[in-house]
Amino acid sequence: MTVAIIGLGLIGGSLGLDLKANGFAERRLGVDSRREHGLQALELDLIDEVVDLETACQEADLLLLAIPVGATIGLLPEILGQITARQTVLDMGSTKAEIIRSVKNHPLRARFVAAHPMAGTEFSGPQAAHRNLFQENAAIICGQEQSAADAVKTAEKLFKSLFMRIIYMDAEEHDVHAAYVSHISHISSFALALTVLEKEKSEANIFNLASGGFRSTVRLAKSSPKMWGDVYKQNKNNLLDVLDLYVEKVQLFRDLIAQDDFEGTYEQMAQANEIGRILEVGGERREARGESREERVESRE
Amino acid sequence: MTVAIIGLGLIGGSLGLDLKANGFAERRLGVDSRREHGLQALELDLIDEVVDLETACQEADLLLLAIPVGATIGLLPEILGQITARQTVLDMGSTKAEIIRSVKNHPLRARFVAAHPMAGTEFSGPQAAHRNLFQENAAIICGQEQSAADAVKTAEKLFKSLFMRIIYMDAEEHDVHAAYVSHISHISSFALALTVLEKEKSEANIFNLASGGFRSTVRLAKSSPKMWGDVYKQNKNNLLDVLDLYVEKVQLFRDLIAQDDFEGTYEQMAQANEIGRILEVGGERREARGESREERVESRE
Repeated sequence: MTVAIIGLGLIGGSLGLDLKANGFAERRLGVDSRREHGLQALELDLIDEVVDLETACQEADLLLLAIPVGATIGLLPEILGQITARQTVLDMGSTKAEIIRSVKNHPLRARFVAAHPMAGTEFSGPQAAHRNLFQENAAIICGQEQSAADAVKTAEKLFKSLFMRIIYMDAEEHDVHAAYVSHISHISSFALALTVLEKEKSEANIFNLASGGFRSTVRLAKSSPKMWGDVYKQNKNNLLDVLDLYVEKVQLFRDLIAQDDFEGTYEQMAQANEIGRILEVGGERREARGESREERVESRE
Repeated sequence: MTVAIIGLGLIGGSLGLDLKANGFAERRLGVDSRREHGLQALELDLIDEVVDLETACQEADLLLLAIPVGATIGLLPEILGQITARQTVLDMGSTKAEIIRSVKNHPLRARFVAAHPMAGTEFSGPQAAHRNLFQENAAIICGQEQSAADAVKTAEKLFKSLFMRIIYMDAEEHDVHAAYVSHISHISSFALALTVLEKEKSEANIFNLASGGFRSTVRLAKSSPKMWGDVYKQNKNNLLDVLDLYVEKVQLFRDLIAQDDFEGTYEQMAQANEIGRILEVGGERREARGESREERVESRE
């Protein structure tokens, strides 16, 4: 089929690579507000043609929105206004409730499937695109009952072609869980980077003393401010809720240490260790992909 | 030379593997308070013989302390009391000032070299040991002027044989920088795990929605509570200092989001992005080791 990828960054570009390689897309149209991204995407063979949004809406069987969630809310109604009931639109955003609300009463609402593939990196732009970014991760489809059955089928076919496991979730529920398990870790990482940058004036010390653990913990602080600002805005209340608890937990460690209550810190850390068991299966999965050493090396200091 | 490794966990065991492979140690003695660790270490060829501390102190040219920093303070004076001026003792702990103070007036103080190889993983025990754990990381040597020149040379020779770059630092200075750049990231990670475990009751949701970014950020929460409790205790004031700033930074994000000040969050995130440039060289180094994809894949959600 003809697939139009709107937004030729990490996600859109990686979709372009995999969907050509696995034969899902016979023809890949690319749309990007930045001309240089379109040209880079062509060079990197992420897409076959750069087109404008109108052309994409006329010629694509499936349109994939891989842009910041704020831009999605702006663009989605416009796209639904230009397509026919034989076409399908799928978004890839990290938030779902507001995006779904934004087209609630649109006559072609049923052609839209709201999705969130749990994959990505801290890098952005066409050069960040790479093969197999999505495989073995979860693809969340939200509010599928509001989408046409054939549109949902197309979405499922897409994610299966990327070797993703599909999970169905209510949009509000998705946003709550995403705040708890995913969005919060970006803020903890940005805050850690700001702390170290303010405290540690010597870049050489940061570089030399940065343990693999620190590198791993601060990695998300390299993420795109634009993309994450949109996520904070759309998932504000869930994020505030989890941020308040996070501050409490850091403060708890702080107070236990201040009071020399090292039995207390021990108990907290032993509880926290539990996360390892829960993520283990995933760990083993990644280990099977040969990531164990890279994932493990350097992180004790 | 004959090397005694005291503490046959991740660090001691990995030293055993590399020091045999690179020919630095002709004979590897192993000491561990837990009998099963000694037996596992023999099975895994981390050491050649299990001996008691007395034998190690009699027969080893070089003694390597790879135990929690609290235990080091207990054991180090005892070891210095049993060795001669022809032997050298080296510790591998994450804190340095208190350890150095603990032997300040010991007649054989000069035989001790205080060191901190910046390498490790979140795993512990003999089974966690692996080759090349140390290579291309920094090895910090503290207060070398208090150690005998030949003892420092031995330490330098050891770290060079592991392909580490050697950095000299005052012990108090080391502890400050280690708190800022390394220790804090363990607390931010433990606190994140506790937050998610309290908020997210569904283990399936944690597993499915855990982005690579979350896995990366929370990875250190699997670390050993015993080892880290000792570090908090010995580096208390530096840690409290950086924890207070960290809480401020998380709170700042919280307040900016609460006030819908998304220009403000954008500015903070753009500042935080700077950490990427500083760590970049290391990133490229790891990339050269083929870790880029594993390090990068999955972390956007």
